[in-house]
Amino acid sequence: MNASEFRKRGKDMVDYVADYLEQIESRQVFPDVEPGYLRPLIPDSAPEEGETYEEIIKDVERVIMPGVTHWHSPYFFAYFPTGSSYPALLADMLCGAIGCIGFSWASSPACTELETVMLDWLGKMIGLPEQFLAGNKGEGGGVIQGTASEATLMALLAARTKVTRRLQAENPKLTEAEIVSRMVAYSSDQAHSSVERAGLISGVRMKKIPSDENFVARGQALKKALEEDKAEGLIPIFFCATLGTTNSCAFDNLLELGPVCNAENIWMHIDAAYAGSAFICPEFRYLMKGIEFADSFNFNPHKWLLVNFDCSTFWVKKRSDLIGAFKMDPVYLQYDQQESGLVTDYRHWQIPLGRRFRSLKLWFVFRIYGVKGLQVHIRKHVGLAHEFLECVKKDDQFEICAPVILGLVCFRLKGSNELNKALLQKINNSKKIHIVPCCLGDTFVLRFAVCARTVESSHIQFAWKHIKELTTELLNNEEQQKARN
Amino acid sequence: MNASEFRKRGKDMVDYVADYLEQIESRQVFPDVEPGYLRPLIPDSAPEEGETYEEIIKDVERVIMPGVTHWHSPYFFAYFPTGSSYPALLADMLCGAIGCIGFSWASSPACTELETVMLDWLGKMIGLPEQFLAGNKGEGGGVIQGTASEATLMALLAARTKVTRRLQAENPKLTEAEIVSRMVAYSSDQAHSSVERAGLISGVRMKKIPSDENFVARGQALKKALEEDKAEGLIPIFFCATLGTTNSCAFDNLLELGPVCNAENIWMHIDAAYAGSAFICPEFRYLMKGIEFADSFNFNPHKWLLVNFDCSTFWVKKRSDLIGAFKMDPVYLQYDQQESGLVTDYRHWQIPLGRRFRSLKLWFVFRIYGVKGLQVHIRKHVGLAHEFLECVKKDDQFEICAPVILGLVCFRLKGSNELNKALLQKINNSKKIHIVPCCLGDTFVLRFAVCARTVESSHIQFAWKHIKELTTELLNNEEQQKARN
Repeated sequence: MNASEFRKRGKDMVDYVADYLEQIESRQVFPDVEPGYLRPLIPDSAPEEGETYEEIIKDVERVIMPGVTHWHSPYFFAYFPTGSSYPALLADMLCGAIGCIGFSWASSPACTELETVMLDWLGKMIGLPEQFLAGNKGEGGGVIQGTASEATLMALLAARTKVTRRLQAENPKLTEAEIVSRMVAYSSDQAHSSVERAGLISGVRMKKIPSDENFVARGQALKKALEEDKAEGLIPIFFCATLGTTNSCAFDNLLELGPVCNAENIWMHIDAAYAGSAFICPEFRYLMKGIEFADSFNFNPHKWLLVNFDCSTFWVKKRSDLIGAFKMDPVYLQYDQQESGLVTDYRHWQIPLGRRFRSLKLWFVFRIYGVKGLQVHIRKHVGLAHEFLECVKKDDQFEICAPVILGLVCFRLKGSNELNKALLQKINNSKKIHIVPCCLGDTFVLRFAVCARTVESSHIQFAWKHIKELTTELLNNEEQQKARN
Repeated sequence: MNASEFRKRGKDMVDYVADYLEQIESRQVFPDVEPGYLRPLIPDSAPEEGETYEEIIKDVERVIMPGVTHWHSPYFFAYFPTGSSYPALLADMLCGAIGCIGFSWASSPACTELETVMLDWLGKMIGLPEQFLAGNKGEGGGVIQGTASEATLMALLAARTKVTRRLQAENPKLTEAEIVSRMVAYSSDQAHSSVERAGLISGVRMKKIPSDENFVARGQALKKALEEDKAEGLIPIFFCATLGTTNSCAFDNLLELGPVCNAENIWMHIDAAYAGSAFICPEFRYLMKGIEFADSFNFNPHKWLLVNFDCSTFWVKKRSDLIGAFKMDPVYLQYDQQESGLVTDYRHWQIPLGRRFRSLKLWFVFRIYGVKGLQVHIRKHVGLAHEFLECVKKDDQFEICAPVILGLVCFRLKGSNELNKALLQKINNSKKIHIVPCCLGDTFVLRFAVCARTVESSHIQFAWKHIKELTTELLNNEEQQKARN
C-alpha cells in the first residue's frame, strides 16, 4: 500500500470510525459469541500473496464486530469508563505517523519535552502540590505510564531500592535479599488487584489493612499493622492509598494515613486511577486532601479524561528516587547532552524501554476541550450517577451499598447474594446493558458505572427501567417456584 | 469536536500523515533543538476555553516537528528499525475507535481471539515449533506484550515462581525469600540492558557469561558458570539467549546452550527482538536452530515487520507456567465463561491489566503484504546492509567489527576509540544521517542499521559517501593538528 492508496483508505477509515461511534447505540453492547468463535471464521495461516483492502474491511464486520464488547456504547456501565474522544483519535494518528521511540531525550526530543510539560499542565489542572511538578528547576515531575499497575509497581520498586540502599549504608554487611525478605508493604483490603500483584513481582510481602464500614482505609488500622510488624522485625517500606477504589469508589483517608507514613518514613503512593480525573473540578478536590504527604501520585486520563488508552499519568516528588532505582546506560543509548543535567530520559522512569508519543493525546484533548469542556464532561457523569442513585433510592426493593461520590453506584436487591447473582445474570444475558459485580465484604453487589462519553439521562432511565423489569420477572419466577415447591 | 468535524479533520490528518511520510526525506533526520527548547514555545498551563483544530495543527509544525528525530527517514540508521506501514496505521485507527480494554475474554472476545490466532499465524510464518502454538488443544500459545523488556521479565517471573513452588513442595519449610536469595539467572555479556533490569526488578541475581570472539554465547561458558554457582549453593533458574544482539546482531549458539539448559532444568528464554522478523524467510531459519530447547520465545514485529510500535510477540510452550505465576481474580473481573477452560484471559500473561486491540495491526499487515511482501522487505534490508558492508570492506581506512548477517553493520575507522568517537560526533553533528555507537569489548564501534521502510540503495550510497567525506575532513584536521604540535 503506497501513500496514495493510504490517502483513500485512510479517509474511508475515518468515515468508518465516525460511523461506528455515531451509530454505536444500534449495536448490541455485549456480543453473542461463544469462546472459540473466531478461529473457524478465518484461514489457518497468513496468506502468501497480499490481499486487497476491501477484503479486509469486509471482514471487520464479519469477523471482528460480532465479537466486540462495545465499551463506548451508552449502554455500557461495566468496570470503569475508558476514555475516547475525537481529538485523542486524531492525536493518535499523528503519533503513529511520527512513530518515534522516545526512550531517551535524543531519540526524539519533542516526545520527551511535550510529555514533561503536559504532565505539568495536568498537575496544575488537578491542583497537585508544586513539589510534584517538573517546572524548570523542580525535583519532581511526571511521566506517562501504560497503566496504573505499572505506576504502582514503579513506586514500589523505587521504595524497595531506596530502603535497601539506606540500610546497606548503615550496615554494609546486609545483603539485598536479607533486607527484602524483611520488607513489608501495605494497601487497604479494597485496593486493586494490581497492588497485590506488584508485591508478587517485586518480591515484597504485601499486607492488606482492613477498611472501615465505608470501605475507607484509616490511620489507626495502618498504625496497628505497622506496630505489629515492626515488633516482629519486619521493615515497613510502602503504603498504597487508593482514591476511588474499583469496588465502590471509596477514598482512603489521606489526612490520617499520610502523617503515619511520613512519621515512619514509608513511601506513600496514591492510586487514583479512576477518580483522579475528577480533581480538575475544584468541588471534588476535597477528596484529595492530604496528597501533600504522598511521595507519588497516579491516575488514568485514559479512564475518565477523554484520552484513549493507554495514558496513565504518574508524578513523583523526587524523580531521583525513581531514576536511581534502575538507571542503566549501555553505549548504544548514550548521546552528547545526557550528562548536561538538562534532559529527561524517560526510560529510567518505567519498566519497558520503548515508548510512544502519547503526550500528543493530552495536548490535543486539553486544547480542543479546554479545562472547562473537560469539567463539563466530569460533572455530567457525576450528575448521571446521582440520577441513577435517586432512582434506586426511591425503590424499596433495592439498597445502596456504598456512598455515591462520583460516577459509580453500588446497589443490590434486598435479599441474598444468590438473588443478586441471578439478577446480574439476567441483566447481562439480555445484553441490553452491560454491568459487572463486586464484593463488598461478603456482600455481592452490582456496580453501575457511568462510562460512555455520549451517555445521557435517557440511557440512565432506560437502564433503570430495564433493571426494574428484569427484577420483576426474576421475583415473579421465584414466587412461582416457591409456590410449586 | 463532534463526528462531523472529526470526518473533516480526520481526512485532513490522513493527508498530513501521508505528506509527512512521503516527504520525510526533505526533513533533517536529527533535530537542531537544545534541551528545554519546547517549554517556552507553549503556554504555562492548559487553556480554560477550547481552542480550534487549526490552532493546534499549526503548532504541530511550529512546536513538535522541529524537535522530532525522524525514525522513518531513509537517512536514519540508528538503533534498530521501528516498524511503520500504511496498513498498520489504518489498523491502529480502528483499534482506537473500538477502544476496548481486552484484559479478559469477556471484556472483548474478538480482541483476545484474534490475538491468539494471529500469534499462531505468525508462529507458523517463522517456523516456530508447534509446541509454542495455541491451536485448538495446544498447551502453548502466544501473546502480544508491549516490549521485549516485558517479555523477558514475564519469562523470568514465571521461572522464579515455578522453581519456588517446586522447592517448596519438596521442603515446605523453605520461605520464598530464602529460595529467591539463592536463585541465579544468566545471559550473555552481549544481552540487552533490559535483561539485567529484569533481574533487578524480580530480585533474582543476574550473571553475564562471557561471549566468544564473535560475541556469541556458547554452551561451555554457561556450563562453567552453572557448575561454579551450584558448587556455591546457588540455584540456577533461567537463561536468556539472544538471537541478534543489539550491539552487533550476534546469534547465541542455541544448539549448545539449549541442551545445557534442559539438562539442568533451567528456563531458556530467547530474545530475538530484532532478528526474529527475518525468520519469515526460510533462508534465515538456520539462525534459530535449537529453538526447540526453549521454554519461551520473543521478537518484535514492531521492529522489522512493518507493524507500528508497540507489538512484541511472545510465545510459551506451557501457558500454565505463565498464568500460574500471577493469577488473580477479583470479582469485578469475573464472568460466566471463564472457568469453561475454553477462554484465554490475557491479563494473566502480562504485567499491566489493560491492553489494546493490537492484533488488528498484525492482521492488516499480514493480509495487505502477504508473507511474500514481508519477505521482500526483509530481504531488501539485508541486501542493503551487505551493500554497505561491501563499501566498507573495499576501503582500507575502515574495518568490520563483527559478522554481518542481517541488517546491521558494525564498523570503525582503523585507529583509536577517540578517533571513532570524533567521527561519530562529526556524523551526528552534520545531521545528514543519524547513527549510534556501541562497545564490543573495549572497542568503540559505529553501528549502521538499515531502518526505514523506504530506504533504497541511493540512501546507502549517500550515507557511505558522506561518512567518507567526513572521515577525510577529520583525518586532515588531525594531520594539521599534529603538524602544528
